[in-house]
Formats: sequence, structure tokens, C-alpha cells
Amino acid sequence: MQAAATLKKTKETIIREDRIDEAAIDQLFREARTHNGWQARPVSDELLREVVDLAKMGPTSANASPLRVVFVRTPEGKERLKPALSPGNVEKTMAAPVTAIIGHDLAFYELLPRLFPHADARAWFVGNEPFIEATAVRNGTLQGAYFILAARALGLDCGPMSGFDNAQVDAEFFAGTTIKSNFLVNLGYGDPAKLFPRSPRLDADEIARFV
Amino acid sequence: MQAAATLKKTKETIIREDRIDEAAIDQLFREARTHNGWQARPVSDELLREVVDLAKMGPTSANASPLRVVFVRTPEGKERLKPALSPGNVEKTMAAPVTAIIGHDLAFYELLPRLFPHADARAWFVGNEPFIEATAVRNGTLQGAYFILAARALGLDCGPMSGFDNAQVDAEFFAGTTIKSNFLVNLGYGDPAKLFPRSPRLDADEIARFV
Repeated sequence: MQAAATLKKTKETIIREDRIDEAAIDQLFREARTHNGWQARPVSDELLREVVDLAKMGPTSANASPLRVVFVRTPEGKERLKPALSPGNVEKTMAAPVTAIIGHDLAFYELLPRLFPHADARAWFVGNEPFIEATAVRNGTLQGAYFILAARALGLDCGPMSGFDNAQVDAEFFAGTTIKSNFLVNLGYGDPAKLFPRSPRLDADEIARFV
Repeated sequence: MQAAATLKKTKETIIREDRIDEAAIDQLFREARTHNGWQARPVSDELLREVVDLAKMGPTSANASPLRVVFVRTPEGKERLKPALSPGNVEKTMAAPVTAIIGHDLAFYELLPRLFPHADARAWFVGNEPFIEATAVRNGTLQGAYFILAARALGLDCGPMSGFDNAQVDAEFFAGTTIKSNFLVNLGYGDPAKLFPRSPRLDADEIARFV
């Protein structure tokens, strides 16, 4: 019995050295919620820049880094966004301190001589539109998820949404560019009183199998 | 001067209450690296299941939860994966303790009566193939990024890759299902000696603008 207890303690100690602390795991994953109502507390541009500076550190294919973000946080900006939103997303988005438009630049590969200097990665993409599109969408979306978790790491709450007219947002915010919108994220400090009950998740064994 | 100092201290105190601790932010974002070499230290199925149980908590559109994962961690499994890999990804993948195939189920909407019980979300998707595909890819990719950061939170290192033949992996691992592969993630405890120097990132102001 004593040997088993010692082994268990040692195993726990090893695990705890590697893991981030449990409160951080709760804040990022287990207790984080998608918010629909917001406290009056403002969000500084400095903090939003820090979210970007963390999110950009996450891995992308060939360091392609296609993520582009517009932080909409003025009443004028919100009015430009409003006509593109699905009806169910209007009220909460207008009320959020900030709405981030998560987009990706289809011309990301033009920056690869700087971002991936040890190979001619630009040449892998030029003229291959399906590969450009797939790489921009996959990696821009990965970076959008890093963005959500970076915001949570810095104490912000998120309300991500894909219910809006992408073409309308692109025309309004990305006209004359090679940037396309992907999804939106309301940002601020959530009002717990306006949370819906958490929806159920699949069991790990329904998601994953081992071979 | 004293008033300014007090204000600054108060602001820092408020920020620190909200943020996860700096060591955790380093482990997740600032100091995490894409690994190509691996320590001999094994990875338990229990820990891999815990990665999935954290990743699944991240937000998806209508709680669609399309992520499906195959953990390849036997020599036999690795041999099935090997022919689909780009030449530059073979050696590190064969050496990794585990390779996760990150996929998404195009039939995710059949589970929505259970996952999103408060509305008939299944009806939004049935028969609308482009919407099914876009939702599965976007949310499966978001969940793939949550998976990477969940693995890092639990002390694992990651080596994500998109350099492989998706159709070949689908035929080998997902035949007769509605699941499609998206990308791969090598998992284990990285060997710092085999790291490449970190590639540069864009400045926050190149990624984001404010309106």
C-alpha cells in the first residue's frame, strides 16, 4: 500500500510540473463560456494588441501567418457592421465593447520571404489558387482559435459568431484588398447573468480513437 | 507623482486578477515551439484523452463539435500513415510518440438534436452541402487549434503538419465514414536540441487595425 501511494504521489508531481496550473486550465477551457451580454467595463486598444501579439505566436503552416483582424469598437464602426449581421446576432454585437473581424489575407505568400526566410516558400503558392485558398482558410482559422484562447488568457470573454454575410463585411471593411472575412468575435467582460446553460459535449471516446 | 504611481499599481493589480499567470502564457504562446525531435518519454492514452476533453470545451458554431481524432501511436499505425506523408515529414513523424490525425465529421449535424437541444439546428444543414462543408471545416479547424493549445496546457509539445496526402489518409483511416482528415499533429515531449530557430512574426499593427 505504501509503495502504491508513493508511486501515485510521484506520478502526480511529474504531471504537475508539466501542466499549467488548474485555475488557468479552468479559465481557458473548463469554465470559459461564450458570452452574449457584457459588463460596462471598457477594453483598451493596448490589451487588444496584446491578444494579437499572443495569437500570432501559435503555429501556422510554413509560418504563413495569414490572420488579419479589424477591431470594431466605435459606434460608427458598429453601424457599418450591423447590416451584415444575422438578426439574432445584432443586439449582442451592438452591445459588445469590441467586435473583432477575423480574416485572412489570400496574398499571405508574398510575405513568406520575410516570414520563412530559409526556403523559397513563396514559390510553392504562386499560381496555385486552390492551395492558396486552403492554406489561408486553414491557417487563418487556426489563428482565429489562438486569438480566442489568447483573449481568454488575458482575462477577456469572447462571443464568436459565424452568423453574418461575409461578402457584405468584405465589401465594407476589405474592399480593394486580398483579405477575406472568416468569423466574428465579440470581446469584453461578460455578464454571467446573461449566459445560457452550457450545451453538452461529446464523450472523448466519441471524438477520438486509438490505433 | 504619487497619484500616478498609485493608479498604475491599481491598474496592474486589476490586470493581474484577470490574466492567467505569466508562466502559463509563456508555455502556451510565447515560449512554445513546433517540435521536430522527441524525447524517449512516453505519452499515455489517459493524457491524450484529457487533451480531447479540454479541446472539446472550446466554442463551435451551434456547438456543432465536428472534430474527430485518430491517435496513431503503434508501429503498425505509423506504417499505415507513412505512405501518405510528404518526404520532409516522414522521419519526425515516425519518431514521434504519437501522431494525431485531426479530422472533421461531415455528418456532424446528425448529432445536433443532442448537442444543441434548444433549437432544430439539424434542419439548418440538411441538404445544404456547401454550408455543411464550410461549417465542418471552420469548426473542425478551430477545434484542431484548441487541441494544440490543450496539449501544450497539459505539458505536451506539438508538431502540426499539413504536408501529407489527405485523400490517402482518408482512404486508410476513414473509409466508409463521413470523416475527412484536416491536418496532423505530432505529440510528445520535444527535444530542444532539435529545434530550428524561431521564425519571425508580423508586428501587431500589420495584423490588426482599429475602427
